[in-house]
Amino acid sequence: MTWQGRRPNVPEEAPLPTSSPDAESDDTARDTLAGVGEFGLITRVTAGRAQPPGTLLGPGDDAAVVAAPDGRVVACTDVLVEGVHFRLDWSTSEQVGRKAAAANLADVAAMGAVPTALLVGLACPPDTPVATCEALANGLWSEAAVVGVGVVGGDVASATQLVLSVTALGSLEGREPVTRAGARPGDVLAVCGRIGWSAAGLAVLGRGFRSPVAVVGAHRVPEPPYAAGPQAALAGATAMIDISDGLLADLGHVARASGVVVDVRSAAFEVPARLADVGRALGVDPLHWLLTGGEDHALAATFPGAPPEGWTPVGAVREGAAQVLVDGRVYDGGPTGWDHFAR
Amino acid sequence: MTWQGRRPNVPEEAPLPTSSPDAESDDTARDTLAGVGEFGLITRVTAGRAQPPGTLLGPGDDAAVVAAPDGRVVACTDVLVEGVHFRLDWSTSEQVGRKAAAANLADVAAMGAVPTALLVGLACPPDTPVATCEALANGLWSEAAVVGVGVVGGDVASATQLVLSVTALGSLEGREPVTRAGARPGDVLAVCGRIGWSAAGLAVLGRGFRSPVAVVGAHRVPEPPYAAGPQAALAGATAMIDISDGLLADLGHVARASGVVVDVRSAAFEVPARLADVGRALGVDPLHWLLTGGEDHALAATFPGAPPEGWTPVGAVREGAAQVLVDGRVYDGGPTGWDHFAR
Repeated sequence: MTWQGRRPNVPEEAPLPTSSPDAESDDTARDTLAGVGEFGLITRVTAGRAQPPGTLLGPGDDAAVVAAPDGRVVACTDVLVEGVHFRLDWSTSEQVGRKAAAANLADVAAMGAVPTALLVGLACPPDTPVATCEALANGLWSEAAVVGVGVVGGDVASATQLVLSVTALGSLEGREPVTRAGARPGDVLAVCGRIGWSAAGLAVLGRGFRSPVAVVGAHRVPEPPYAAGPQAALAGATAMIDISDGLLADLGHVARASGVVVDVRSAAFEVPARLADVGRALGVDPLHWLLTGGEDHALAATFPGAPPEGWTPVGAVREGAAQVLVDGRVYDGGPTGWDHFAR
Repeated sequence: MTWQGRRPNVPEEAPLPTSSPDAESDDTARDTLAGVGEFGLITRVTAGRAQPPGTLLGPGDDAAVVAAPDGRVVACTDVLVEGVHFRLDWSTSEQVGRKAAAANLADVAAMGAVPTALLVGLACPPDTPVATCEALANGLWSEAAVVGVGVVGGDVASATQLVLSVTALGSLEGREPVTRAGARPGDVLAVCGRIGWSAAGLAVLGRGFRSPVAVVGAHRVPEPPYAAGPQAALAGATAMIDISDGLLADLGHVARASGVVVDVRSAAFEVPARLADVGRALGVDPLHWLLTGGEDHALAATFPGAPPEGWTPVGAVREGAAQVLVDGRVYDGGPTGWDHFAR
């Protein structure tokens, strides 16, 4: 089903939230899910939301209907788990909602597509404050608004731990999808967007600090370069991927899918001053964060020639057994990515 | 991202499972998620699966691409939580997978659409046997096969409890969606598919029994009448809904969205002999299961005239303040539906 609180063709019953939903400023904000119930929650998180024109039928029915103008739909799902992907003492619920949306919207961009809608499956404990769910919804909507889409449907269920499963839909606008499998020897490797910032922010939070705000904020809410996905597709990108687990780990998928060597040139990265500062303070080479840090949701792509504006060339594609190298050698700076079940 | 184990344009690495994945018949079956890792799991659950022609790009990239022939896509998400929606001592993992798929595919059917794809977000403990996940995947695929679609993408993450969030996509084939809001006074209310069976099965399991197999099986794996959704749309259904929470509870959504009275005629239901038997054994009026039992995922629809073949007329739509009645009166047989956070 989809969120059932906002029914088509009937007037809205609940007013728009007028203050921060995280603030416990009135009785309503102290309600729990057990108190308002499943449908009460759904009414609260869907009321007063304006859907974009591409949402042909929004929340309130068994399913939503979304425009797919070129006769195809791009679709992907990402799961975020409390204590694994986020901590509610490190991030606000709204930031968690933004991050969950961003992870999925970046996957759509990495195909060369533009997002068209989000759906959300939420599992959470019955004693969760309704305000927490409203803040999560606000976060999802805020990030969706960055790319002009809406949250068109979802479901909510009780569980022992907060789990957020977000699905994003997208449109290729008539273009072919840019997969991980098209990189060819001779291509230029380029990246667009911040990398290493989220990892630096996580390192700061892990040491018990809350600043510098710039890197901590980057960990809490990534800023994927959504428009760079379709831009790269139009510029002839041969392969593209969203950097969610770390540059080297994610380039591994491109190398294997394309059957090529991807060689990253470390001197190509200009280490931002802030990351250098944080690295000095924590005794970490900031280049390690750039090469292995995930969750910034930057894009990496390969191009037959020079990359378009806004993209930084950082390496080359070569013939050979599928692998990722740094300056022609296997990277030995430590773990290169994130595995959810690794011991 | 989508399942990344099956890469486009490269040969499959893992063989098709040849025996029941729930059976711990070899070393492979005793692996846990912590042992094989996130990507090992994804390889195992995606290997050797054949996608239908409508899957333009399957698992293995940042997102999948699915055909949306009439320029629109139907989309919905349902969440199933271990201990809430299912118990792994009452159902096999494969049955849980089937049920999760069925709940979503029925939502697509309830719009008058045909399913085109499934995506799955799975959160589960690191000590979960890989065989359990393979069985869940087998169940999703088995139910998807009933309607000729594939699992095109997904994500997996570690959590303390097994949570399955499934998204279904569908095609309206050029028709208008049948919403909950179109029921008009004078319409005939009709249902298609089994109702009450899952509730009877749950009652049996709750008393510690494992038979009769027919009702227990109905609880474990629903058999939604998928084709009846598009059939009803073609026959001019004015409103339609998937009965997931119970007939009366779900008709409440139709009554409110349409602004009508929905009056159910109890004499219209022929109580199946098996349900009558189980009711006698447990001291329950089986009509209560028919009126309030969820999870069979039958369809209820309203028609301007006689319903099409296979549909049973069970009531009428009348003018008046939105409510659901049974034989002209408010039903007083007990709770009429399921609320996930109700105290």
